[in-house]
Amino acid sequence: MTLFDLVIGKPLPTTEERAEHIGPISGIPVFGLDALSSAAYGPEAALTLLIPLGFAGIEQIVPITLAIIGLLAIVFFSYRQTIDAYPNGGGSYTVASENLGEQAGLLAAAALMIDYILNAAVGIAAGVGALVSAIPRLQPHTLGLCLAILLILTLINMRGIKDAGSAFLIPTYLFVGTLLLVIIVGAVRAIAAGGHPTPIVAPPRLPASASMLTLWLLAKVFASGCTAMTGVEAVSNGVTAFREPTQKNAKRTLTIIIVLLMIFLAGIALLCRAYGIGATDPTGSGYQSILSQLVSAVMGRGWFYYVTIASILAALALSANTSFADFPRLTRAVAQRDCLPHVFKIRGRRLLYSYGISALVGSTALLLIVFGGVTDRLIPLYAIGAFLAFTLSQAGMVMHWKRKGARRHMIINGVGAVATGITLLVVLVAKFTEGAWITAILVPALILSMRAIKRHYDRVTCEVNIDRPLSIENLAEPLVIVPLDRWSRITEKGLRFAMKLSDHIQAVHVDAEDSCEEIKQIWQRDVAVPLTRSGTPVPELVILPSPCRYVLPPLVDYVLKVEHDHPECQIAVLIPELMVKHWWQTPLHNQRAQLLKLLLLWRGNRRIIVINIPWYL
Amino acid sequence: MTLFDLVIGKPLPTTEERAEHIGPISGIPVFGLDALSSAAYGPEAALTLLIPLGFAGIEQIVPITLAIIGLLAIVFFSYRQTIDAYPNGGGSYTVASENLGEQAGLLAAAALMIDYILNAAVGIAAGVGALVSAIPRLQPHTLGLCLAILLILTLINMRGIKDAGSAFLIPTYLFVGTLLLVIIVGAVRAIAAGGHPTPIVAPPRLPASASMLTLWLLAKVFASGCTAMTGVEAVSNGVTAFREPTQKNAKRTLTIIIVLLMIFLAGIALLCRAYGIGATDPTGSGYQSILSQLVSAVMGRGWFYYVTIASILAALALSANTSFADFPRLTRAVAQRDCLPHVFKIRGRRLLYSYGISALVGSTALLLIVFGGVTDRLIPLYAIGAFLAFTLSQAGMVMHWKRKGARRHMIINGVGAVATGITLLVVLVAKFTEGAWITAILVPALILSMRAIKRHYDRVTCEVNIDRPLSIENLAEPLVIVPLDRWSRITEKGLRFAMKLSDHIQAVHVDAEDSCEEIKQIWQRDVAVPLTRSGTPVPELVILPSPCRYVLPPLVDYVLKVEHDHPECQIAVLIPELMVKHWWQTPLHNQRAQLLKLLLLWRGNRRIIVINIPWYL
Repeated sequence: MTLFDLVIGKPLPTTEERAEHIGPISGIPVFGLDALSSAAYGPEAALTLLIPLGFAGIEQIVPITLAIIGLLAIVFFSYRQTIDAYPNGGGSYTVASENLGEQAGLLAAAALMIDYILNAAVGIAAGVGALVSAIPRLQPHTLGLCLAILLILTLINMRGIKDAGSAFLIPTYLFVGTLLLVIIVGAVRAIAAGGHPTPIVAPPRLPASASMLTLWLLAKVFASGCTAMTGVEAVSNGVTAFREPTQKNAKRTLTIIIVLLMIFLAGIALLCRAYGIGATDPTGSGYQSILSQLVSAVMGRGWFYYVTIASILAALALSANTSFADFPRLTRAVAQRDCLPHVFKIRGRRLLYSYGISALVGSTALLLIVFGGVTDRLIPLYAIGAFLAFTLSQAGMVMHWKRKGARRHMIINGVGAVATGITLLVVLVAKFTEGAWITAILVPALILSMRAIKRHYDRVTCEVNIDRPLSIENLAEPLVIVPLDRWSRITEKGLRFAMKLSDHIQAVHVDAEDSCEEIKQIWQRDVAVPLTRSGTPVPELVILPSPCRYVLPPLVDYVLKVEHDHPECQIAVLIPELMVKHWWQTPLHNQRAQLLKLLLLWRGNRRIIVINIPWYL
Repeated sequence: MTLFDLVIGKPLPTTEERAEHIGPISGIPVFGLDALSSAAYGPEAALTLLIPLGFAGIEQIVPITLAIIGLLAIVFFSYRQTIDAYPNGGGSYTVASENLGEQAGLLAAAALMIDYILNAAVGIAAGVGALVSAIPRLQPHTLGLCLAILLILTLINMRGIKDAGSAFLIPTYLFVGTLLLVIIVGAVRAIAAGGHPTPIVAPPRLPASASMLTLWLLAKVFASGCTAMTGVEAVSNGVTAFREPTQKNAKRTLTIIIVLLMIFLAGIALLCRAYGIGATDPTGSGYQSILSQLVSAVMGRGWFYYVTIASILAALALSANTSFADFPRLTRAVAQRDCLPHVFKIRGRRLLYSYGISALVGSTALLLIVFGGVTDRLIPLYAIGAFLAFTLSQAGMVMHWKRKGARRHMIINGVGAVATGITLLVVLVAKFTEGAWITAILVPALILSMRAIKRHYDRVTCEVNIDRPLSIENLAEPLVIVPLDRWSRITEKGLRFAMKLSDHIQAVHVDAEDSCEEIKQIWQRDVAVPLTRSGTPVPELVILPSPCRYVLPPLVDYVLKVEHDHPECQIAVLIPELMVKHWWQTPLHNQRAQLLKLLLLWRGNRRIIVINIPWYL
């Protein structure tokens, strides 16, 4: 067992595929962390916009949250139906391309890829951001910490989906458990106090109302709150990862995730109103997050507070993991339709689509480095991709039900499509100048690339595919060209191999150093005479002049000329190559063989074939 | 004519070799700048050590300079004799290896290589240093200026030795002319004033004597002054660069260079005493070089002063050029004896040993970067190499004359050998801690490398050389293995080529994705049936299981197994390879063909041959 095996795990045979599948217990950490951890920043994002309204703003959070929960319910039912309709994984990409056509599918794919990469980056950055605001002296290491967490996630995920699920079980359930406990205790106290409980640690006082509620503000608050919904589609995309009964397990997992998320959102909204908790200015000095205020108010600042806050940090950081579970599946699905490089279809040693994981890690690292690992700069790019994918998926399902004549289903998805579509527009307009324009450029760029890739593969398939049996005509021997530097055992081996292949052989010597006469003599004595004596056809010796001492250009030109003069046969160029024992011996020998191979492949054509005769020292 | 041709010059045919040869006029800039420009720092280095003696020190400079000139005369006669004895270029390397044995030759080669690289670095750094002390605001760009001059020198030298000689004509003769004029005018005035002329601009006052003259100080002053002798051996090393009559032209060039250098050294020493010019502290603020004081004293600070100083700067910077002329010739001579990679023997498009130039430029750039382009840090490494080479060369000539029985010549060279040997010891001891230890480590390291290279080449020659005619026994057809991914035009082309080569063909399919049955069916239908019908032997289809979905390892293992099972025949592995039209299409296709080639070359052995069938899209 090598160190590599120890870190990444032993290779898994394809037959163990079933054993690598998961149930709802592992499914929640793998596919649910993204959605669940959104509860930590969705309500916060909404309440932050309500700061100018002061205490009056808090009153608004409950109806807005109810609207979001309503939208979530629509999306939930829609995705349950998607899982039933697409048991092989029905992400937005599949649904959109099957129901709305290829272009819509590519749009969804581009949106989702960007969304997953941003989710990984934002999750890690948010976790590290929270950690840094708790321990300010880590501040200078923000980017380093982000990249370290990315590395750990990569290593864990490289071991396969099952091991990843196990590794994240404890942090996930700690996060869910503590948050649920806070909500239950808070609710019980609020009801016992007749709706006006006394906080154990009082939240910061809210400022006086400074402005009025407008419809535009309401729309923006709703749009910001909707970031709580990102990650909901993960389960439907990863159906195949679940163990038998696959669809049932997937739906059960989705239900648990959505119900938990709804409880979180509703609980946070109601408790905020009950305890009078509002957002504080995130750029101000007295900043404290909503959840921190809430836990302090309900449970006080004891050890429980710190455990809860720590579990929130962990959940945020690990929410990036959803991207690791879904991004490679998405790229694989796209690659199967020839719109991404085919390597994304290859399953690595642990039955994962390793190239997809590499692409995700590379892009995420790039994003973290470019944006310095700062969440605030990344957030505006986010959510657009998610809502674009939601909208396309819902619209696709509308077409799906329409074809099947299922009116009721159609209406549910139709409402969802309109709602998520409006949200998308609001997000795009509200955040365009803050960075959403980057996404708005990237999506079409990605789509154009995918179409170019598809065109390339189509052309290759067309050129390469064969629908007839092997042709057995014209199996004439090739004309073999053997470049001859000097007469040595290496040359002899090449010439002998050439004689095995064909009777038409040309030995070509480039006369770069005035050694022409010598070569001719040796050739006559050591090759021509013994061959003539034994009645074997004698190869032709060709001497190419080279006044400027170039060796390769005259040789390549000659090969091309021969190819041109013999249109009926293939030309095999036989290149003897010295293989050194140690890498440091490489510069001691000229690399002409390598260069000649490259030149012939580059300038050559289909009838020129390169034969490599290695000579090991 | 491409841009490349315009910068570097058109390729020169070997037949134009004679036309590229030079006479004394171009020979002085090419081979003499190093020696001549030493006059700018040799006396300065000696006088700097005499600062503590105050005015009394200046008195000592004349006898010491006379001693140096005496040594120079010995070396001069010695090298004249060397040119006669070695008309094909008799650098220290040739003389030492032919007369003192291979080990002494390698010692000389290592010393000279280091010396030439240091000469290039010191010359450039000294020129830039002088420029920077004239224009202090260029100070931060020291390293950049050094590298820029190195680049310009490289480009000029890449055009060939003749063009380099022409390019340096004007700066060289300007330097020689102005310095000669200063010495003549100064001497005339001094004689006219009865030995005590009045300086036009008075030099800085000399400090009072602070210490006594010791023998050790005298030795150190002599050793420092000897840096004026570096570069003297350049001509004897480059004899072949001169036009017919070769030896006569070379000797004439050497004579002119040495006579000029002697006049410079003697003139500077005498005028310094006459005008009372001593060195100033180079680390102090009022620093002014000896030559600057001398020119001011004799000619005043008019335009002539600035022209002279500028020509000194140019000569210093261009003195690096001697390394460009000699280093490649040296590495070529060493490579001819198999002690350096053979690429150093190849003459490039302009009849130069381009690899030698590249090695020189690379090492010089590295040295300049490591030492930040500061002359003072480089100087201690210098001179050791030069004097080691002098000593070995003179000792070699002693053996040469001894064998010929030429007693008088033997005595001249013997005196030279002893004198340069003592100087070498003094330099080594005096400068050991200042950096000479680096040279003292590098020389043995280089010698060990060269011996290892020699051993390697000897072994290869022994393995590869052949002293018998072509063997024509056992020309059995090879066993051809064709990896088969799926049935396509590319596979068909490969199979057809295999059928041209041999009747023993195995098509090998690695079953990584459960496509085994499909392949078998297609094989039966499209290959086996038509071949059987036409009576051609049917290739064998081999299916390799691969539970962990690896493709290449089972294939390579299988090839090695087949090779092991068929000890009597060669195995040809036929690798069809897709050639894309544009580089960006590369990631769209898997690079297994490339990898397989590498793996087979790396793990394979002499009986495994790789045949590359390109398929151009």
